[in-house]
Amino acid sequence: MNFSSRLLEEAVSALSSLPGIGKKSALRLALHLVQDNTGKARKIASTLQELSSGIRKCTVCCNLSDTEVCNICSNPSRSGHRMLCVVESARDVMAIEDTNQFSGKYHVLGGVISPLEGVGPSDLNIGQLQERIVKENIEELIMAISPTIDGETTIYYISRLLRDSGIRISVIARGVSFGGDLEYADELTLGRSIVSRIPYQVQS
Amino acid sequence: MNFSSRLLEEAVSALSSLPGIGKKSALRLALHLVQDNTGKARKIASTLQELSSGIRKCTVCCNLSDTEVCNICSNPSRSGHRMLCVVESARDVMAIEDTNQFSGKYHVLGGVISPLEGVGPSDLNIGQLQERIVKENIEELIMAISPTIDGETTIYYISRLLRDSGIRISVIARGVSFGGDLEYADELTLGRSIVSRIPYQVQS
Repeated sequence: MNFSSRLLEEAVSALSSLPGIGKKSALRLALHLVQDNTGKARKIASTLQELSSGIRKCTVCCNLSDTEVCNICSNPSRSGHRMLCVVESARDVMAIEDTNQFSGKYHVLGGVISPLEGVGPSDLNIGQLQERIVKENIEELIMAISPTIDGETTIYYISRLLRDSGIRISVIARGVSFGGDLEYADELTLGRSIVSRIPYQVQS
Repeated sequence: MNFSSRLLEEAVSALSSLPGIGKKSALRLALHLVQDNTGKARKIASTLQELSSGIRKCTVCCNLSDTEVCNICSNPSRSGHRMLCVVESARDVMAIEDTNQFSGKYHVLGGVISPLEGVGPSDLNIGQLQERIVKENIEELIMAISPTIDGETTIYYISRLLRDSGIRISVIARGVSFGGDLEYADELTLGRSIVSRIPYQVQS
C-alpha cells in the first residue's frame, strides 16, 4: 500500500497487529478515526494506555482486576460457599457471571495443560489453587473447563493431584445445546449424551 | 457483560465504537492486549495519539498528510502533467497509487454530492479545485469517482461548473471487471459495457 502519511502507515501497522484485523481493515479503522471529530482516537489511545498500565491479576483468584483483590473475591456475599469454580481464563469468568447461576468464587488457571503448545502444569495457577483449598477450607471444585483434549488433560491432572485431599471434583454438564438441532450436533457429543443420559423430571 | 475490571470495560467500550467491531470482538481484542507482553497496547495507544494530533489535510490537494504539503504534491517529478486526477477520498488516492498507472497529481474532494445525506457542493473541496485549475494551468481532469448516483451527480456538477473553461474532463473506464465472470456482472454494467464497446486491438 502506498501511504501518503507516515503517521497513518504506523497506525495501520499497529492496528493490524491485532488478531483478526488485516491491513485493509486496519486502514478502514484508521481512516475512520482520522475522519471522526468526536475524539475517538484519543479516547481509545487513553483507555488502552490505562489498561496496559493499570490492569493486574487478582492475588487471590488470578482473575483480571483493577485492584489487588478483585471485586468478586472481595465481595463478602460470595464467601461461605466452600466451593470454587475453576476456569481457564478471565473471559470464562465473565461468561459464567453472565448466566447468574453461580454465586461463589472463581479460580482462573490462566490456560490449560497443552503439551503441543509447551504449556505444562507449572505454567498455570495450580499452586495458588492448592494453597486456596487449604486456606479457604474448600470442599468442592467445579471444573468449568472446555471439554477439549487439553481441557480434559487439565481436569485429570488436577483431580490426580488432589486425589488424597478428600475434595469433591465435579465437571459442568456436557451434552447437546439447548435450542440446538440434534441433526447438527457432532457425533461425539451426541454419543456421550446418550451414554450419560439423565432421568427426566416433570417440571411441577 | 459482567466485567471484573473497570479498565477492561472502558477499553472494550472505546474499541467497540469502531466500525464493524461489536462488544464481543472488542472484548477479544482487549483481552488479547492484556495478555500480550510485547507492549502492543502501548504501541497502538501512542500511534493513535500521534495520528490524531499530527495528521492534517495537504493544503494543495486536500489529501491526508503529515506535512503542510503532501509528498505527492511536493514531488517535482509529479509536476508538468497539466492534469489532475479527481477522487473522493484519501483511500482512493492510495488505491490508484497502488496501480502504478498514474504519475500526475490528485485532488481529493472529501466526499461526493449527496442530497440524501445533506452533502452539497460547498461541503466538498471544489473551490480549491477551481483555484488549482487556474494556478497550475490544468488542461484535463480525470474523474476517478465511483459510478454511483451520487458520484455521477458530482461529475455532472463539476463538468457544468467548468463548461466554459475549455478544460477536458474524462471519466475512468467503466465496464466488466478483468477476471470477472459475465454471468455475475450486474445488468446495468453489462448493458452499458455493450453500448460503450471499444474497438478490439490485437496486442503486438
